[in-house]
Amino acid sequence: MVILGIDPGVAIVGYGVVDYTGNRFRTIDYGAITTPAKTKLTSRIKTIYEELRLLLYQHKPDVMAVEELFFNTNTTTAMAVAQARGVILLAGTNESIPIFEYTPLQIKQAVTGYGRADKQQMQQMTKTLLGLASVPKPDDTADALAVAICHGHSNGFGAVLGAETI
Amino acid sequence: MVILGIDPGVAIVGYGVVDYTGNRFRTIDYGAITTPAKTKLTSRIKTIYEELRLLLYQHKPDVMAVEELFFNTNTTTAMAVAQARGVILLAGTNESIPIFEYTPLQIKQAVTGYGRADKQQMQQMTKTLLGLASVPKPDDTADALAVAICHGHSNGFGAVLGAETI
Repeated sequence: MVILGIDPGVAIVGYGVVDYTGNRFRTIDYGAITTPAKTKLTSRIKTIYEELRLLLYQHKPDVMAVEELFFNTNTTTAMAVAQARGVILLAGTNESIPIFEYTPLQIKQAVTGYGRADKQQMQQMTKTLLGLASVPKPDDTADALAVAICHGHSNGFGAVLGAETI
Repeated sequence: MVILGIDPGVAIVGYGVVDYTGNRFRTIDYGAITTPAKTKLTSRIKTIYEELRLLLYQHKPDVMAVEELFFNTNTTTAMAVAQARGVILLAGTNESIPIFEYTPLQIKQAVTGYGRADKQQMQQMTKTLLGLASVPKPDDTADALAVAICHGHSNGFGAVLGAETI
C-alpha cells in the first residue's frame, strides 16, 4: 500500500511517500512544496494544488494521510492554512483517493508509542522506521513522513476524513 | 463589468452575478450551491468546486468578490468553511479571474452607507439596488449579492485578496 503523507501549510507543504507492505516501510519519495512569501494567497494555493497533482500522477498513492488542523493562536495563519488544506483535499478527491486524517496526538502515539513524544524523538523514530541516513529537512517533510507512518501503523483505525458532520 | 459575489460556506455557498455598468446594477443570476449534511467534507468541497466552475463557464465574470472569513466562535466550522473557501479561490484563480475580498463591515458600508446596518436593512437595500421583486433566499444568496454590490461601489478600493503576506 502506497501512502502519501501530507503536513499542510501555505509556505511549506511537507510530503512523504512510503510503501507499507508486510509491516515494513519502504521510502519512495519525500520533500516539500514551497510557495514564496509576499505573493497572493490565490497564487500560492494554485501552486500547491498543481504540484500536489504532479505528485499524485507520479506516485499514484493508494491513500492520503493528512495531519488534522489544530490551532489556538494565530487565526489569520490558521485560516490561510485551512484554505490551502482545502485544495490539498480536492486534489486527492479528484483522483478518488481515500483520505484519512490524524491528530498530532495520534501521530505521536502511532510513531513512537508515546503521545507526548517531543519533536526530536519523533524525527529519530521516523528516520529509524524508514531506514533513512538522516532526518529529512525541513521539519514539515519529517512531519509528513510521520503521518504516513501513522497511517500504516493504524491502518483501519484512522477516522476517514470528514466522517464528522459540521 | 460582470461581478460574481460569493458568500463562502460548506453546507451553503451563496452566489450572485451582477453587471455593474455606468453606476447601475443589472442582476444576471443568483442562487446557492448546497451540499448535503452527513457527507464527507472531501465530497462536499469537490461539489462546491465543480458547481462553481460551471457558474464561471456560464457567466464568465470579470471579477470575483468574496466575503472575508471571520470567526471567533466555532473553530471546527470555521476550519471547514476555510477549506471550502480554498477551493472557491482555486476555481477563480484557475480561470485567471481577479479576486477581491471584503469584510462584513466593508460590505455593510458599501451597500447601506452604514457599517452597523442590520440584516434586514442590508437585504432591503440589496433588493432595491438590484431591482428585485423580493429578498433572495436563502440569506447566503442575499449576502453574496451584497458582496457583489460592495465590489461595484468600492471598485478599486477593495484590497486584492492575499495582498497580505502570512
